[in-house]
Amino acid sequence: MAQTFPIPMVDSPEQPAPSDALARLYAGFEAEYLIPLWTEIGGLMPAQPRSAARPHVWRWSNLVALADQAGALVPVGRGGERRAIALANPALGGRPFATPTLWAAIQYLMPGEDAPEHRHTQHAFRFVVEGDGVWTVVERDPVPMRRGDFLPQAGWNWHAHHNATSRPMAWIDGLDIPFQYLTESQFFEFGRPEISDAERVTPERSRAERLWGHPGLTPIGVQTGTGSPLLAYRWVHTDAALRDQLELEREGYPGVVEPGHAVVRFTNPATGGDVLPTIRAEMHRIAKGSETAPVREVGSSVVQVFDGGGRVTVGDQTWSVSRGDMFVVPSWTNWSAVSEASASDSDSGALDLFRFSDTPIFDALNLSRSQKG
Amino acid sequence: MAQTFPIPMVDSPEQPAPSDALARLYAGFEAEYLIPLWTEIGGLMPAQPRSAARPHVWRWSNLVALADQAGALVPVGRGGERRAIALANPALGGRPFATPTLWAAIQYLMPGEDAPEHRHTQHAFRFVVEGDGVWTVVERDPVPMRRGDFLPQAGWNWHAHHNATSRPMAWIDGLDIPFQYLTESQFFEFGRPEISDAERVTPERSRAERLWGHPGLTPIGVQTGTGSPLLAYRWVHTDAALRDQLELEREGYPGVVEPGHAVVRFTNPATGGDVLPTIRAEMHRIAKGSETAPVREVGSSVVQVFDGGGRVTVGDQTWSVSRGDMFVVPSWTNWSAVSEASASDSDSGALDLFRFSDTPIFDALNLSRSQKG
Amino acid sequence: MAQTFPIPMVDSPEQPAPSDALARLYAGFEAEYLIPLWTEIGGLMPAQPRSAARPHVWRWSNLVALADQAGALVPVGRGGERRAIALANPALGGRPFATPTLWAAIQYLMPGEDAPEHRHTQHAFRFVVEGDGVWTVVERDPVPMRRGDFLPQAGWNWHAHHNATSRPMAWIDGLDIPFQYLTESQFFEFGRPEISDAERVTPERSRAERLWGHPGLTPIGVQTGTGSPLLAYRWVHTDAALRDQLELEREGYPGVVEPGHAVVRFTNPATGGDVLPTIRAEMHRIAKGSETAPVREVGSSVVQVFDGGGRVTVGDQTWSVSRGDMFVVPSWTNWSAVSEASASDSDSGALDLFRFSDTPIFDALNLSRSQKG
Amino acid sequence: MAQTFPIPMVDSPEQPAPSDALARLYAGFEAEYLIPLWTEIGGLMPAQPRSAARPHVWRWSNLVALADQAGALVPVGRGGERRAIALANPALGGRPFATPTLWAAIQYLMPGEDAPEHRHTQHAFRFVVEGDGVWTVVERDPVPMRRGDFLPQAGWNWHAHHNATSRPMAWIDGLDIPFQYLTESQFFEFGRPEISDAERVTPERSRAERLWGHPGLTPIGVQTGTGSPLLAYRWVHTDAALRDQLELEREGYPGVVEPGHAVVRFTNPATGGDVLPTIRAEMHRIAKGSETAPVREVGSSVVQVFDGGGRVTVGDQTWSVSRGDMFVVPSWTNWSAVSEASASDSDSGALDLFRFSDTPIFDALNLSRSQKG
Repeated sequence: MAQTFPIPMVDSPEQPAPSDALARLYAGFEAEYLIPLWTEIGGLMPAQPRSAARPHVWRWSNLVALADQAGALVPVGRGGERRAIALANPALGGRPFATPTLWAAIQYLMPGEDAPEHRHTQHAFRFVVEGDGVWTVVERDPVPMRRGDFLPQAGWNWHAHHNATSRPMAWIDGLDIPFQYLTESQFFEFGRPEISDAERVTPERSRAERLWGHPGLTPIGVQTGTGSPLLAYRWVHTDAALRDQLELEREGYPGVVEPGHAVVRFTNPATGGDVLPTIRAEMHRIAKGSETAPVREVGSSVVQVFDGGGRVTVGDQTWSVSRGDMFVVPSWTNWSAVSEASASDSDSGALDLFRFSDTPIFDALNLSRSQKG
Repeated sequence: MAQTFPIPMVDSPEQPAPSDALARLYAGFEAEYLIPLWTEIGGLMPAQPRSAARPHVWRWSNLVALADQAGALVPVGRGGERRAIALANPALGGRPFATPTLWAAIQYLMPGEDAPEHRHTQHAFRFVVEGDGVWTVVERDPVPMRRGDFLPQAGWNWHAHHNATSRPMAWIDGLDIPFQYLTESQFFEFGRPEISDAERVTPERSRAERLWGHPGLTPIGVQTGTGSPLLAYRWVHTDAALRDQLELEREGYPGVVEPGHAVVRFTNPATGGDVLPTIRAEMHRIAKGSETAPVREVGSSVVQVFDGGGRVTVGDQTWSVSRGDMFVVPSWTNWSAVSEASASDSDSGALDLFRFSDTPIFDALNLSRSQKG
Repeated sequence: MAQTFPIPMVDSPEQPAPSDALARLYAGFEAEYLIPLWTEIGGLMPAQPRSAARPHVWRWSNLVALADQAGALVPVGRGGERRAIALANPALGGRPFATPTLWAAIQYLMPGEDAPEHRHTQHAFRFVVEGDGVWTVVERDPVPMRRGDFLPQAGWNWHAHHNATSRPMAWIDGLDIPFQYLTESQFFEFGRPEISDAERVTPERSRAERLWGHPGLTPIGVQTGTGSPLLAYRWVHTDAALRDQLELEREGYPGVVEPGHAVVRFTNPATGGDVLPTIRAEMHRIAKGSETAPVREVGSSVVQVFDGGGRVTVGDQTWSVSRGDMFVVPSWTNWSAVSEASASDSDSGALDLFRFSDTPIFDALNLSRSQKG
Repeated sequence: MAQTFPIPMVDSPEQPAPSDALARLYAGFEAEYLIPLWTEIGGLMPAQPRSAARPHVWRWSNLVALADQAGALVPVGRGGERRAIALANPALGGRPFATPTLWAAIQYLMPGEDAPEHRHTQHAFRFVVEGDGVWTVVERDPVPMRRGDFLPQAGWNWHAHHNATSRPMAWIDGLDIPFQYLTESQFFEFGRPEISDAERVTPERSRAERLWGHPGLTPIGVQTGTGSPLLAYRWVHTDAALRDQLELEREGYPGVVEPGHAVVRFTNPATGGDVLPTIRAEMHRIAKGSETAPVREVGSSVVQVFDGGGRVTVGDQTWSVSRGDMFVVPSWTNWSAVSEASASDSDSGALDLFRFSDTPIFDALNLSRSQKG
């Protein structure tokens, strides 16, 4: 796979007239490892973000089929670490980057398999669109993973996964690998060769949830670090929160972000802020027949259809989507969605979209902008 | 009632020898509204806080009996505003102050009664030790109140209460009235003469809970102000959180603050910080037979026994306490509790204590200190 | 001196009709240390702050004359600690409180005298309206004090003063003694009996200024605590900053807060925020002939005339003031000033006012309000 | 110039055995725009940052000579915007990036020339190693630029430059262009075609300095945005601050970061934090004969020798450096410097290094790490 990282060079400012002297000057620049601004400014300093990435959709059926084949062919172990297969944006030069800052992958674990323990500064989460049977073990706390669950795991926590059942399981991983790669800030360490028997138990709830999963209630006997101490956000809560917003709308009260469009953000209960320092995660529910207004933001996002079906428009692309499909929204690119339930969809007919983005980076640096409509 | 505010004058630094000249000097000071430091320093700048307040216990049976009589004799209406009866610390000179900064009162509402709408900058909460049937209406959102519920209400929100049942109901109010009174920062406004029929409905859950009561999930379609947007912290959650901590302790995992002593703090889900800008609120559960280590803090607190029974020591006072009893812990005064269940107590035999304090004031100003053991 | 703390009881809500039953109820309340809200609400929860303090002016000539007599009669030493004489607001019941939260005093040190080392959690500053010759020694760093200098000293720093000259010197102290007294948060410790010879040197600049006194430049080799690490804000800078603002106004550029009214706030260079956690300090310059618009704020302040002369209005009081005069502005009380230079005043004819207030307390707790005009 | 962005692929984890099935799987990945983690993890998730950039030094004499030729051949005007020539790290594939996140360039303006007004979200500063005569006009405020001055200019402020003298002038620019380019967060707008006569004046001080250049003094009549409101940090102050630190060291007091090594950080007086949201800037003075301990940090920096001479080691490279020379320190690469004054150097014999880095990005996201020695 090629290693190039293509750059949009759109504007071409007027250049000085060619001459021997200019050619000598430019040769002098090259010899001294110098590049003038006036030949590069169009690409480097555009009027607004022009993403190197492009809108693209990946179909869940294809992702699962390939992951399933990998399950048969590729072992999981120390070194390779994870059977994770990353979305590689077609415009990002063959790098395993969904967007210039975000990694998105399908991960797959066979019956009885373990993914070995390690830790890294990259912030991560798992999200489960279907299936169950895997426990992710974070700082020795086994956390069950089931359909609809969002499982954040802030950087530098030890973690492993084990499949305790007789069925394979797939889920998606989101990380800030490209961001930390490009800014060269990442650290990584291998953990113990095997997790202990005590970590192979399969509790219904993690210890993290028992401490942090009660609304508005903070345990004062434990410390917190960077990122959310709550290791699982269960579907039962997310679903109820979205349903409540749409019911409030029907009753005439505030709650939704726009007509027929409910959103909850996964947040760190210890701070009320984003669940991870570099990643925002949200669940959107678009009521049957509703359509969201186009919106664009600084920064990129990746979206997975959790339930229902509909049409999604990103920039100049429009796709019909259904459960599990994933697509990317490049920086400063409009996106919108319309819910179009088919017979096979959920009872409510709503379109549920799980979305994650790099917005906390821009919020922290006062670089965020967004524009609606 | 007397208006004096007694001041502990403990240290008496050596004073200049009496003389006619000194007497003339002191007369000059008095004429010019001046007071020297050297005669006052002992009381004003003690080595450590010496509270003007004193430890004291109020018995729930007495509080309820008097509130019940007030229900028969004193109407609730515009002007008097609330049938609230405040704990007046015996050492605070006849002021209705539980401590120098905190107000604590029993409030009582007769069947069908309304407490009229108003708002004030004083931060407030309600806590229900027994009974139900009253809805507090905060910014037109009716919030049911039931045993074990904690209901914060940040300053400057409109609020009224109505008893929708055929039984009287009592609960306790906590506010920062003395703090805002002493620092002269309070504002107050009357609201509408009557709340609307739409606010007289009796929903099971408030709209605030439907938006903010899902753990770790933030609704992004609504704005928040000062203080928690979650208007009710239900007993079912508080109880579960405490039970989880004690179970984790039994399993050998972190969670409790000390052996047999679980604590949850009521926090603002939008910030992770204290539920109100000037008031910290917590529920403590002391397992059957356990005893807490003495601890003292800058700032004062008020405690109500929610369930169980035991002995409490505050400074040099020790009392046997049971459900509903309330006591004050003055600034920098040791307190501890031991759980001693009697036959009539809850199944678990634990002692549950609801506690609120003025700690956020000192945290915000870098004046907090505490000392254990 | 009386110990009462008078409370304004303005509004008298309608009360239940007197009866024997009511009398028995009230007797029951008194026996149980209870006070009803409905008899107290007018004073406790007024529509807006009604300060217990009253506007008052103290004349510098009187302050200096009495301090001078105290210099002859009252020694400075361990126990009494400081020859400080506090402004006692005439309406605050004989307490040495300029306002309910602020202490303001004239301090006086005779030739060769030392004020002994101690530390306390109360935040303090010194401001010099005239004279020089004293070095305040903060954490063993001798800091010269001269006319116009503002010298903050955050809580819990060791400090002593010594007069290294053959002349007495007077200055003013500002502290949050009443606030910490009323909230019962103060600690105090005696220091060494004598400061060392190394601390008796009389440098032109403190070490704090050498580290922190360069605009926008932070020394990264040292740590900072609570409150400003810069121990002296010199008049040469304050004067230049005010002059610059008025010149910018004349040139048509922003800078002043209103026509002819320049203000600089003394801030912590490590945070950009207020110089002390509980005290705001500012220098105001009102150009010759200018008048400030009335303004009122939550919280109280104390003002000293640094230079020039004029008329000041606080609430319903108006005074002619000149160098050194001090006055208090109670909470939520309008104040304004007009500059009326006399022949003997400074060349510029401006009125310079040094002002300190308790505003950071209210800012930290979201209780600040102000109203102009 | 090539567009590749080389990636260090160091670790090669053991891979599954080649087979037809595996080849088919990998072809399936490629067809679906997928890339497995197990082939990429070595490069993507190294044990610690391995910078794509390499240590490199640029000699000031070469930079100035080429800039001088560009002055003769390349006009400055709308479109090209600036006669700026960027350091292109030899290992960054022909991009005009000094490091993966930082832009560093020499800018050059001929007598009487104007660089046209524009604004952009990229944060910028200018630093002057020699010469004077240019005023940078930021939000219509003309700011003189002279040797030793540091001139920050936060994103989205309008700015132009004009050379008001009969001599050319060179200086360096630092920006976060690569960071905003890679994260796709940049906006850019052209300003007026010409600045006004009122902006062509040549004041000694900017209005920004008159408002914000007084140590610890904040003008309360003006608002601040993102980044420092102080538009010039003058050499006279920086030099004094460094001299003070080294004198304090000689007197036995804290101040320097290590023996013979003084550092001041340019900070935002409104916050005390870094001068720009994405860029840290510091001046280091290494006393004659002193040597700094090797240190490495997450993130990259660019250093320019301001005065003196010595030897610098970055990673495995060592260079003799003198005034104006510039070098880059890649992420997590040790660097150190020793001061070796020659006869022609400054009186003090110290080595003065101006340094800027991307550290605020990592501080904001909890990704900072550093290691000394």
